[in-house]
Amino acid sequence: MESGQPRILKGTRDFLPQEMIRREYVIGKIKTIFESCGFEPLATPAIEYVDILTKKYGEEVDKLIYKLSYRDGNTLALRYDLTVPTCRAAAMHQKDLIKPFKRYQIQPVWRAEKPQKGRLREFYQCDVDVLGSASILADAEIISIIYQILYSLGFSQFKIRINNRKVLNALIEFCGVPSEKGMEIIRAIDKWDKIGRDGVEKELITLRLAQEVIRKILLVITAEGAHDELFAQVRKYLDFSSQGKEGLDELILLFGQLLAFGIPKEAFCFDLCLARGLDYYTGPIYETIVEQPRIGSLTGGGRYDNLVKDLSGIDLPATGTTIGLERILVVMEELGMFPVAKTTTQVLITIFSPELSLKCQELATFLRRSGINAEIFYENARLAKQLEYAQRKGINWVIILGPDELAAGTVSLKDMDSGQQERLTPEQVVTILQKR
Amino acid sequence: MESGQPRILKGTRDFLPQEMIRREYVIGKIKTIFESCGFEPLATPAIEYVDILTKKYGEEVDKLIYKLSYRDGNTLALRYDLTVPTCRAAAMHQKDLIKPFKRYQIQPVWRAEKPQKGRLREFYQCDVDVLGSASILADAEIISIIYQILYSLGFSQFKIRINNRKVLNALIEFCGVPSEKGMEIIRAIDKWDKIGRDGVEKELITLRLAQEVIRKILLVITAEGAHDELFAQVRKYLDFSSQGKEGLDELILLFGQLLAFGIPKEAFCFDLCLARGLDYYTGPIYETIVEQPRIGSLTGGGRYDNLVKDLSGIDLPATGTTIGLERILVVMEELGMFPVAKTTTQVLITIFSPELSLKCQELATFLRRSGINAEIFYENARLAKQLEYAQRKGINWVIILGPDELAAGTVSLKDMDSGQQERLTPEQVVTILQKR
Repeated sequence: MESGQPRILKGTRDFLPQEMIRREYVIGKIKTIFESCGFEPLATPAIEYVDILTKKYGEEVDKLIYKLSYRDGNTLALRYDLTVPTCRAAAMHQKDLIKPFKRYQIQPVWRAEKPQKGRLREFYQCDVDVLGSASILADAEIISIIYQILYSLGFSQFKIRINNRKVLNALIEFCGVPSEKGMEIIRAIDKWDKIGRDGVEKELITLRLAQEVIRKILLVITAEGAHDELFAQVRKYLDFSSQGKEGLDELILLFGQLLAFGIPKEAFCFDLCLARGLDYYTGPIYETIVEQPRIGSLTGGGRYDNLVKDLSGIDLPATGTTIGLERILVVMEELGMFPVAKTTTQVLITIFSPELSLKCQELATFLRRSGINAEIFYENARLAKQLEYAQRKGINWVIILGPDELAAGTVSLKDMDSGQQERLTPEQVVTILQKR
Repeated sequence: MESGQPRILKGTRDFLPQEMIRREYVIGKIKTIFESCGFEPLATPAIEYVDILTKKYGEEVDKLIYKLSYRDGNTLALRYDLTVPTCRAAAMHQKDLIKPFKRYQIQPVWRAEKPQKGRLREFYQCDVDVLGSASILADAEIISIIYQILYSLGFSQFKIRINNRKVLNALIEFCGVPSEKGMEIIRAIDKWDKIGRDGVEKELITLRLAQEVIRKILLVITAEGAHDELFAQVRKYLDFSSQGKEGLDELILLFGQLLAFGIPKEAFCFDLCLARGLDYYTGPIYETIVEQPRIGSLTGGGRYDNLVKDLSGIDLPATGTTIGLERILVVMEELGMFPVAKTTTQVLITIFSPELSLKCQELATFLRRSGINAEIFYENARLAKQLEYAQRKGINWVIILGPDELAAGTVSLKDMDSGQQERLTPEQVVTILQKR
């Protein structure tokens, strides 16, 4: 394409108003719930030092980081996630931070991916974490936030799967696997949703485990039952392991706390197949799936008591989750779950004739000061054209202020849906529009 | 510094919760006013193609653009402003856009500056523009938005200076300067605020103008008086120029419209010294200054009927302004204008003892569902320590739920300011906190 021609980098997007309104609706709901639970906003710069970013992820991810070509070489890059910047900020500002630091962060991240369906180069992450508390109550609160967010957005068919890395590690040990192989097995189990039982079995075979061990692992992690039954059954396996029993006790405590937070017991489950791929988790782990449509997990997180220390040298036990904002938006789009209008504008004030323009402006000022979003039509145009504009923009109400209305101290308010129109005082217009 | 050590690029900032709360308060006010006037949000990606960015600014700015080192060389960069991305987006999505396109955009931009006081490498821009209308009513609405924003944020001593490039061009011609020198003179006049009358005079001397011409320019642009007097006086100068008279008529129309929008006449003025440095303005130009503190302009904008066409080939007459978000925040900080609390959390629920923890969670859930931002203390700690936490975080209210309160179906609500404490039902707590 010719240099200078309008074009956009693949894997990045413009959000035109209609889409922005939907995004802001979802983000607004999420923020309201974060803040209702005592979490507060944090923002960090887009640009970070490369060495800080790669410390967590290493070589593999290094090539997915967008680096800046700036003076002294490639020392600067765009953030790859929000976890590393938050840890970096927590370390730098530790004197100013009151612990536990309960923060949420909603900002874009950048990845030099090959763009494809569902894989973007710029997308928003939405994280909520507690830094500086080892209390299981913090994990429970994060999970309750997940529930509240999805519930308030209108999701009904979702399940929060919960496990504990301590339990999983002990179970793997129980099956006769040496602990240094633990993480490889966890990564294999983590693929369950994508590749199924048979796929996981194949993965385990490639890890050169004995047939008997594999059989035992698959048996143990597919145990099912009501919460209490399952806890009792797993306890039998874990009797040998103090770590395992500790993890199980954490889960039992956690499940009681989730009920106290008002989460219905159908909304969460103890799922031994849940592994989470990243190796930094140390305690409870949790993920949310929806039945329809099949899109992978909507949230994912867990406790990571050593990560902040590894990244920044500061000892801050932590737990938290990513809310899959972009995925939630895709699902809500697909299922038609947006209750919002196409536009934030409530009413269009038409211009009957240029001489009445100033009167229309005065009316606009009155409506705006009364909290109504009121647009004025700028051009001289026939009324039909002005109504068509309102129609196309999805503005529900139109005001006409002609000489008759002016003489009577009224305006005509037209409902674009029904086509009905009535004469009202400006105050009456405010009352009607405030109700909507 | 050691590689991997927590550090941040100079000229970029972390926004910790207290600061974020202030920023979001200001941004929230601004968005409310944008939307009350029928403007809608737009967002564009951080990354743009370099050739699109440099098309507007050329070589000089090229070195201030952060480029990405990515595969096929430096073809990608971080956006330098919001105007170019908006024009690019408007051109690409022109079929989907309903005109006029009334958009606002609040996003960070990046500039590879040498950081110094008031000059950052990452900062937020906040733009509001009408694309696709030549109507002066659009200019009036933008100016009325400026007024409403500053008024609603609590500014009182500000003045919106208004001029018109058509008038300014004609005045310069009137003073005997050939029109090709016009832009140089405008750039000199634009420095008035920084270098004063004498400084501008020196600049004009370096442009090799005759002493007589310089004297005339300085006389003409420093004319003062009430709006109507000044209009009459300038009309005499401009009688020879149809462009000049057109510009003056636009201003007269504009000033009438500003009054109809409810802007007090003390809040704006016709200021012949206002020039605006950028060469793309074609009609009304406007800028806002505050008396105290001296910080330069808080907003700046004007009509630019040819810019979108130059950048993207699409003919869209436009007008709009930048709201100097970062500067507004600095001034508000300096003048103590933030009415917001240190925290978004309204109440801290303390944990009297571990056995009562579940009851505290139930209470938290009740309060949150009633719209109260309620935090729970996670750890086992003495009450004094929990109260200290509330104090440090700036949480005004604390709830204590001990065995006595539980038996009576009440809680104790403590006002951290007065130290007073009373027994209330949870419903009464909601009523009290909702009032605040």
